Parts: sequence; structure tokens; C-alpha cells
Amino acid sequence: MSDYRAPLRDIRFNLEEVVDLAEVCTAIGNEDCDPEIVSAILEEAGRLCGEEIAPLNHSCDQAGAGFADRAVTAAPGLKGAYQHFIEGGWGGLSESPEFGGQGLPKVLSGSIQEMTQSANLAFSLCPMLSQGCIEAITLHASDEIKNTYLPKLVTGEWTGTMNLTEPQAGSDLAAIRTKAEPDGDGYRIFGQKIFITWGDHDMTDNIIHLVLARLPDAPAGVKGISLFVVPKYLVNEDGSLGERNDAYAASIEHKMGIHASPTCVMAFGDDEGAMGYLVGEPHNGLVYMFSMMNNARLGVGMQGVAISERAYQQAVEYAKERVQGMTVSGQGGIVKHPDVRRMLMTMRAATEASRSILYTAMAAVDEAHAGLDAEAKARANRRVALLTPVAKGWATEMSLEVTSLGVQVHGGMGFIEETGAAQHQRDARILPIYEGTTGIQAADLIGRKYLRDNGVAMTELLEDIKQDLEKAQQVVEIADITSAVAASLTRYQGLLEDIKSNGQDAIWVGSTATNFMMLSGYVWGAWLLMKSAAIAAPKQQQEPFYRNKVTTARVFCEQLLPRAEALALSMSYGAGAIMDIPEEEL
Amino acid sequence: MSDYRAPLRDIRFNLEEVVDLAEVCTAIGNEDCDPEIVSAILEEAGRLCGEEIAPLNHSCDQAGAGFADRAVTAAPGLKGAYQHFIEGGWGGLSESPEFGGQGLPKVLSGSIQEMTQSANLAFSLCPMLSQGCIEAITLHASDEIKNTYLPKLVTGEWTGTMNLTEPQAGSDLAAIRTKAEPDGDGYRIFGQKIFITWGDHDMTDNIIHLVLARLPDAPAGVKGISLFVVPKYLVNEDGSLGERNDAYAASIEHKMGIHASPTCVMAFGDDEGAMGYLVGEPHNGLVYMFSMMNNARLGVGMQGVAISERAYQQAVEYAKERVQGMTVSGQGGIVKHPDVRRMLMTMRAATEASRSILYTAMAAVDEAHAGLDAEAKARANRRVALLTPVAKGWATEMSLEVTSLGVQVHGGMGFIEETGAAQHQRDARILPIYEGTTGIQAADLIGRKYLRDNGVAMTELLEDIKQDLEKAQQVVEIADITSAVAASLTRYQGLLEDIKSNGQDAIWVGSTATNFMMLSGYVWGAWLLMKSAAIAAPKQQQEPFYRNKVTTARVFCEQLLPRAEALALSMSYGAGAIMDIPEEEL
Repeated sequence: MSDYRAPLRDIRFNLEEVVDLAEVCTAIGNEDCDPEIVSAILEEAGRLCGEEIAPLNHSCDQAGAGFADRAVTAAPGLKGAYQHFIEGGWGGLSESPEFGGQGLPKVLSGSIQEMTQSANLAFSLCPMLSQGCIEAITLHASDEIKNTYLPKLVTGEWTGTMNLTEPQAGSDLAAIRTKAEPDGDGYRIFGQKIFITWGDHDMTDNIIHLVLARLPDAPAGVKGISLFVVPKYLVNEDGSLGERNDAYAASIEHKMGIHASPTCVMAFGDDEGAMGYLVGEPHNGLVYMFSMMNNARLGVGMQGVAISERAYQQAVEYAKERVQGMTVSGQGGIVKHPDVRRMLMTMRAATEASRSILYTAMAAVDEAHAGLDAEAKARANRRVALLTPVAKGWATEMSLEVTSLGVQVHGGMGFIEETGAAQHQRDARILPIYEGTTGIQAADLIGRKYLRDNGVAMTELLEDIKQDLEKAQQVVEIADITSAVAASLTRYQGLLEDIKSNGQDAIWVGSTATNFMMLSGYVWGAWLLMKSAAIAAPKQQQEPFYRNKVTTARVFCEQLLPRAEALALSMSYGAGAIMDIPEEEL
Repeated sequence: MSDYRAPLRDIRFNLEEVVDLAEVCTAIGNEDCDPEIVSAILEEAGRLCGEEIAPLNHSCDQAGAGFADRAVTAAPGLKGAYQHFIEGGWGGLSESPEFGGQGLPKVLSGSIQEMTQSANLAFSLCPMLSQGCIEAITLHASDEIKNTYLPKLVTGEWTGTMNLTEPQAGSDLAAIRTKAEPDGDGYRIFGQKIFITWGDHDMTDNIIHLVLARLPDAPAGVKGISLFVVPKYLVNEDGSLGERNDAYAASIEHKMGIHASPTCVMAFGDDEGAMGYLVGEPHNGLVYMFSMMNNARLGVGMQGVAISERAYQQAVEYAKERVQGMTVSGQGGIVKHPDVRRMLMTMRAATEASRSILYTAMAAVDEAHAGLDAEAKARANRRVALLTPVAKGWATEMSLEVTSLGVQVHGGMGFIEETGAAQHQRDARILPIYEGTTGIQAADLIGRKYLRDNGVAMTELLEDIKQDLEKAQQVVEIADITSAVAASLTRYQGLLEDIKSNGQDAIWVGSTATNFMMLSGYVWGAWLLMKSAAIAAPKQQQEPFYRNKVTTARVFCEQLLPRAEALALSMSYGAGAIMDIPEEEL
């Protein structure tokens, strides 16, 4: 069975040398996060995740969540793990101190998120959903709602959920039908939601649901959707728990992966109606949801990093132990076979590139929240907006390949569930789907983040990339890397022009969007690994880590960056023939 | 739940127009296979697979095979399906008439194999294994063994298995430890085998195991392995069943997919020793096994085609029905979204290219068996040998992508097991592993089939491709396709020279092998779809099928063939940096 050791060295490298955590800390005005404290936080999180949470991963997958009598029971062991998690204060790491959080940078809590996700992806979804819930309430709800719900959400005594999807309304939230009828100081909610992650469980004594619903006078479409807080148990004025609310899990799904994460069908108001409390203004719910979307998407992108990291670690261990035939590099484990090494290094390069993209995006979130001048804030917000669809789309698509390679390295044993490699692939499979499919990310990138933005954020990004390239070009040992990156950048800029020229052609844009999103991932991944290699190359004698960082960047340029050329070629055909077969003849 | 309709039109096109079945039939001297009979066979197989076998696919996956008291029970419904399958004579379609087979071409039985595999991959493995067993016995066993076992194997009254792998001997069969000790006119077999597909079940009253084992005087390594027939029940002289042999399933594996295919740990000789009978000469077992390997590998390659086809059909149906938002092409199913169409057409192009590669390879098997002159036979054998690793490696790797896209098209519903899309991806995951991993296929292609062959078979293939290209270049409407293929061929030939120059460098060869194998698949796939488009283009007014064939070839060139360029770029680095990180620092 697989072990997990938090990749603290690479995490520290990304925090300290790629995104400059010290600067981030200064910017957000948090003086607690000096290097020693950060180090202690990372070590302790690594211990908790590696020693307590990770060992439950396989058994939780096999057992899954339980369901009976409209109630979910968490997979064995998770309740205890969750207790340890909240006792350590790990849920409220970057939440506001005003409500009990520690106000640490997002990029730092992101690194803890990564570890939790690697340790047990299904489990990690529960605190992640709470975070989203906390953010929505913090940003948009009344003081009364904040005071009632935030403190216990921040400590993790309660968990939160997001109730968006209905059977007819997935990617298209305009189709939502759940109703909210005024009742006293609140509303009665009636409707059914599906795909509600951790919609019910027995790890805490209350669960706070955020629910999208329509008021009686709501206009049709996306502008008629409001957001409500619907607690599982009503909260009395003194903070104690009151009546059971009419919000129940109706069933849980039988899924391909993340078995220990109960995916609920939620029934609101099957009896007298579920009491709900309006968040912010009526009809503005979708705006509130979208304001959290970037963060939620970055959280899922981080899941891509996390599951890739775990699959990589497991494949490496197996490849060292498994002896099979004489290799061209002599007797030993299959790790000596060049083809196995190619797989492992591809996994590693994809994982490290994904990590750098995610940490860079999360650091930009911190900058956007920091007390910078308005222009710098706006710029940081644009950067977050631009990076997010790639951080989510590319890192999760890559995680499919990385976890699949993880199975492949195991050979026949990879297909046997006992080994655990298959679980990573099954778990990863949801990542390019939830929080906006890859197609949605791609449309967001090419449409909203590039074309509608008139390329402003992209131009800013390319300037930064070019600066990093120029710096890296000073480091002669990585000339092969910088020349590969330079070539891909030239190609990339040409494509950006093509997109502009075809921006009015919805079919062209829709057809090329995913290829462009993936292409951006390869180019940006190469940029950040080049940047890392430029930092690492002069320190290669200091520590093997730095030498290996340069090597990994090189492998990325050899095995992964060439795909940018294939994607560019595909894009050059535009929609090509993909719409040519009539629908009924497909 | 997904339905399956056999893609008879594309199968007929491949049989009649791509590989010229009529010529194949004449060559093998089978006059029964005139177009009407072929048509009737295909229709009936399509009906059986679509109406009887396919509907069991999901329930069999959910139920899985049962195991208790050293015995396996097939998943509910399969015993009846198997009865219908053998009553129709579908098992012995291309087997020798001497033992009750119908002597039809392999490429025709291959098309039936495809349908069975699409209908229920787990089920289809049982007759496929029997076929391998029949072939080994036919080619290498004594008349006594043939007469005892073949008739009932050919009718399907008994099934066959292949027992190669042991815990320490997977890809490396030299490490086999199972022993065979002389006893009377036979041997007593002692040892444990793992990963034995359909190693036990209750669908027939006997099972014939082929087992690799070592004789007491066997030399070490691959040249000391012999092949034995080990029946589940001994067979009396009059053909009736005798004693239960000491060959039992010890357990079955809990796998990621193909749940209805029992993957057994087989215990031979836990008590008094399992009676076994030597096939052919002592110490020559591995040669016998390898003689069947091409066919078995083509069978698995066909599974790639089959599972891709089924995933494609299901994704198309879902995309037509699922409405989600206004699309750029108007109101309707998500099939109208260009990005969804891109996914569907990529699936379709990969599936059709895979099918053409497989059918071409299987027709070459028929030519190799036909009464041609020795030179033509040798050439056909070389062709089979060359095509096989790509037919197996590429078609199964593509099936991972196609089935994953199938899930993606379904969005969140794809992750729910009820939908059936996830099953295809889980089932497909074993295909690039068993019967030789992708790495093994790649090493076979670059090493044995190209370098060791001094490029003879490859040169012959390229001549044929060039002829087809010249013919296709006459068809002006597909000039875009032919120019893409021509460019990729030039690039491909350059790489073949690179490989020759680096042929002595085992690390270079081992590092580039998989990229070269995948590259070959893209180039050969483009060749065969170009050939198909050239046939189809002049008939576009006749039938939409022909128009759509041209379109699919075009999409292949736009969305998939560009990857050949990426792979070529990666190959240009040779081993690059992939071996540079010391094993212990990975």
C-alpha cells in the first residue's frame, strides 16, 4: 500500500523562491508568517497528512460513505481524522482573524490544502467546501449571518456545502428551479439539488448549506437567482442548536472515485420547507457564487497537483522495488528501464509544473487581497482571473495522464485495487469535471479572460514571462531550456493574434478553446519551470534538490512542451471539419 | 444506460473496401465467404451482440464474478449468453474445419470479435482466451492432444486459458518457477500462476489450461520453459470427463475494471499435483507462446477499437439528449457545442483509425496463412509482425483517451457509475497493460521489428503507403488530407534514419521507443484514413457514410496527426534528461 510523504522541499522552494512568500506576507501585513513559523506549519501539516490522514485513503475508498434513513455516515476513521484536523486549526488557516482564523496567506494555506488532498482527496473536499462557504458569507452576508455561522465554520466545528446543481441545471445555472418563499424573517426553500459534495455526514453536529434558489418575483435566467444560507439545524439566538431543518440527503451517488466523499442528492422542503436566510441582495446569488469561483477552481486545480504528486510517489516506490528482467542499465528495479524512467519523469515534470502554476496563481490571490494601491490590486485580480482557468483546466487534465501513467508503471498490479494506484486514477477523473469542466475553463480563458479583456491581462503576463526569460538567458547552463521556451513563446504570440482575428467567429473560438487552454498550460508550465531552473542552476552544488529541479525542467521541455506545437498545429485549422457531420449522422 | 449497435457500415467498409475481403477469401481458398454470407454473418452477430450480450454489460460490472470454495461463478446472465454464443458457432468461426471450425478469414472473425468486445469486454475475454489455446494446440501439440481437446474447444463446449504470469515473472517470463515432474504418460504440475483470465468459471463443464512450467532438467532462463495442457477435469479415452484435476482457483482479484472477467490466482498441485501433458518439445514452451502472441496482441488491440466504439456511441447519444444552455449553433443538445463536437469527433477519428489498423493487420494474418508463394507469405508475416505492436499499443492507448473523453462528454453524470460511461474507462485501463504493456510493444517495434529486421518490413510498408498516397493525390477534394499525410511521412522517414543512427545506444532506443510507437500509430492511422477517404470521396453523393468518412479522416489530420510532430520533437532529444536524476533521489 502506498505511503505519502509531503513534498516539503518542493513546496518550500515554490513558496520561498518561486512566489516569494516573505514578500506576500509583508504585502498582506501578516508578521506571524516568518520563515520559522512557516517551516513549523509545513512540517506539522506534513506529519498530520502523511501519518494520520494518508493511511486512511485506501480503506476509505473501499468502504465508501454510508447512507441510511436520510443520513450519511462518513467512512470509518474520517470522523477522528477530522477532529485532529480541526484541533490543529488547519481549516481556518487563511480565514480572517476576526472570526477565529489565522489570516495566513492563501498560498500558504494552499500548500496545506495540497497536502490534505494528496493524503485523502475525498476527505479534503469537506474542508474545501467549508472554505468556499466561509468566503461567500464573509464577502456577502449580513453581520447577523456572519456572527451566527462564521465562528464555528472557521474553527471547523461546522462544515459548509455549496448547492448549485439541479438535474437540468449543471453548467447552465440559468435553468435552476429551486424556489424560496418568504416566511417571517427568512424563507422556505423547496427543491432538489444534486451532486452536493459532503451534503450530509456525521463528523460535525451542524452543516451550513449555501443554496441557490429563485424568489417568487424572480426574473427568468441567471439574473433571478438568489443565495440562501440553509443550516441543517437551526441556530438559536444563544448559538445553541435548535430544530432539525427540512434539508436532508435523499441519496448518495455510486461514483467512479472519491468514494469516501458523499455526493448527495439534497432534498430541501420535502415537508414544511427548509428555513433559509438570504445572503446579500435578492437575485444576485450567481454573482456571489462567481466571486468565489476563482478560489474554488484554484482549489480543484490544487487537487490536480495533489493527486499527481501522490501517484508519482507511489509509482517511484513501486518502480524501485519491482524487479523484472535485466535492464539496459543493469540489474535492479524497473526504475532502471528507460521507458519506465520516461514515465516517471513525465509524471514528475507535469506535477512540478502544475504546482508552480497553482502556487503562482494563489500568490496572486494574496496580492489581490493585499493593501496595495488600486492599480496593483486590479492588476493582481486580472492575473488571478487569467491564470485560474489554466490552473484548473490544465492541472486537472494533466492529473488524468499522471495518474494513468502511475497505473501503467505498476503493470498488471496497477489494475488491482489493492495496490492503490487505480484509486488515484479513479479519484482524479472528477477533477476536470467539477467546478466547471475543462470545456468551461477553456471557454472562460479564450472568451472572458483573453478576448473580452482585450488581451490586457495576457499582455501583462507575457511581459513578466519575457522578463523571466531574459533573466534565465543569463544562466548559460540552461540555454537548452531557455531556447525551447523562447521558441514556444514566439509561437504562442502568433496564436494569440490568430485568436484575435477570429474572435468574432463563435464556432472558431469554441472549437479551438480547449486546445488553446492546454497549449497555455504547456507554455506557462515551461515558463515557471524555466524560472525555477534559473534559480536552481547556480545552486546545483549546494543541494541535489536544485540539480534535480533543473533536470525536471529539462524533461518538461523535452517530453511535454513539444505538445504545444501539436496543439498550435491543430488550432491553425480553426474549427476545421469538426462540425461537418450532421448531428443525426454522428 | 447505454445501448450498443454494431457499427456494421464501417465494419463492412473496412472489410470490403479497405482490406478487400473477397481477395482474402480467394487467397485462403474459402468460397463460403461470399458477400451475402458475410453480410448475414455480420447482421446476426450484430444482433446477438447488440440485443443479448450488450445489455448485460453494466449489471455484470456491478455484480462481478463470484468466488467461493476454490470455484468461480460467472456474473448473472453470462452463462446463458455464452450458451447462445456457442450455439451460434461464434467461437469457431475462423478455426480449422478439421476440428469443427468454419475456416473463415481471421479478419472476418476479428470483426465479430470487435462486436463481442464492444458488447461486453469482460465476457469476450473468455472466447478470446479459448482461441489462443486452440491455436497453440493446433500448431504445436500431438495428434492425441488435438483429438482430445480441440473439438470441444472449437465448439466452445470447453473453454481455454493461458497460464504464464507468476508473481515474480510478469513481463520477464524467464523468471518462471512452476515445476513439471514426469508421472506416467504425463507430468505433475506444481506452482502458482497469477492474473489468469477466466481461470475458472461455471459456464462450461471443463476448462483447458495451458501452463508454462519447468521440467526437472530444464536449463535456466527462457530456454528452459515447457508448455503443458492441464485440464480442469481429466478426459477419459472415450471423451467423457474423468477425475477433477488438482488445478484450482485460489482467489480472484478485485480490479479497477472488467469485473465480470474473473482474474484468478491459479493453484496447480496443492494436493497431489495437477496432471499435465507436454505440448510439442520440452523447453520450447516460450517459442510456442510467442507464436500465438501476435494474434493475442491483435485481439487486445481489437479490444481497444471495441471499447472506443462503445464509448463513442454512448457519448454521442448522451450529447444529443442532454440540453445545457444555449449553444453557438442554437438551441438543442450539447452536441451543438463546438467543444463537445471536438471531443466526439476526436473519439470517432481515433476509433476509425484504430479499426482500420486492426483490420489491416488481421487481413495480413490471413495472407500469411494463405496458399501464396513462399516469398509472399514471408512478406505477409513480416507485415503482421510490424503492424502488431502498433495495432496493440496505439489502439489501446487511444482507447484510454477515447473512453476518458466519453466520460468528459457526460460531465458530472460520467462520474456516476449508473451512467455506464465510467465503466468503459475502467474496463479500457487494462488494455495497454495485458498481453505486453505499451512499453513492451514499443520495445518490440523499435527493436525487433525495425532495427533487428534492418528496416525490411518498414521499407515494404512505406512503399505501400506511398502507393496509396499517390493514388489519393489523384483525388483533388482531399488535397488537404494528402498533403498532411505527405508531410508526416517525410518527417517519419527522417526519424527512421535517426533511429538507425542511434540503434546501438540502448538508452536512446529505450527512451524513444514509446514515443516512436505512438508516432507510428498516428502516421499509420492517417495513412489508412487517407486511403479510406480516397475511396470514399468519389462516392460522397451515393451515401452519407462516404461523406462522413472523408470528414473523419480530415478531423484525424487536424486534431490527432499533429501530435506526430510533438512526438517527433520529443524523439529528437533522444534520452535527453530522463535518466539524469539518480534513482534514490526520484
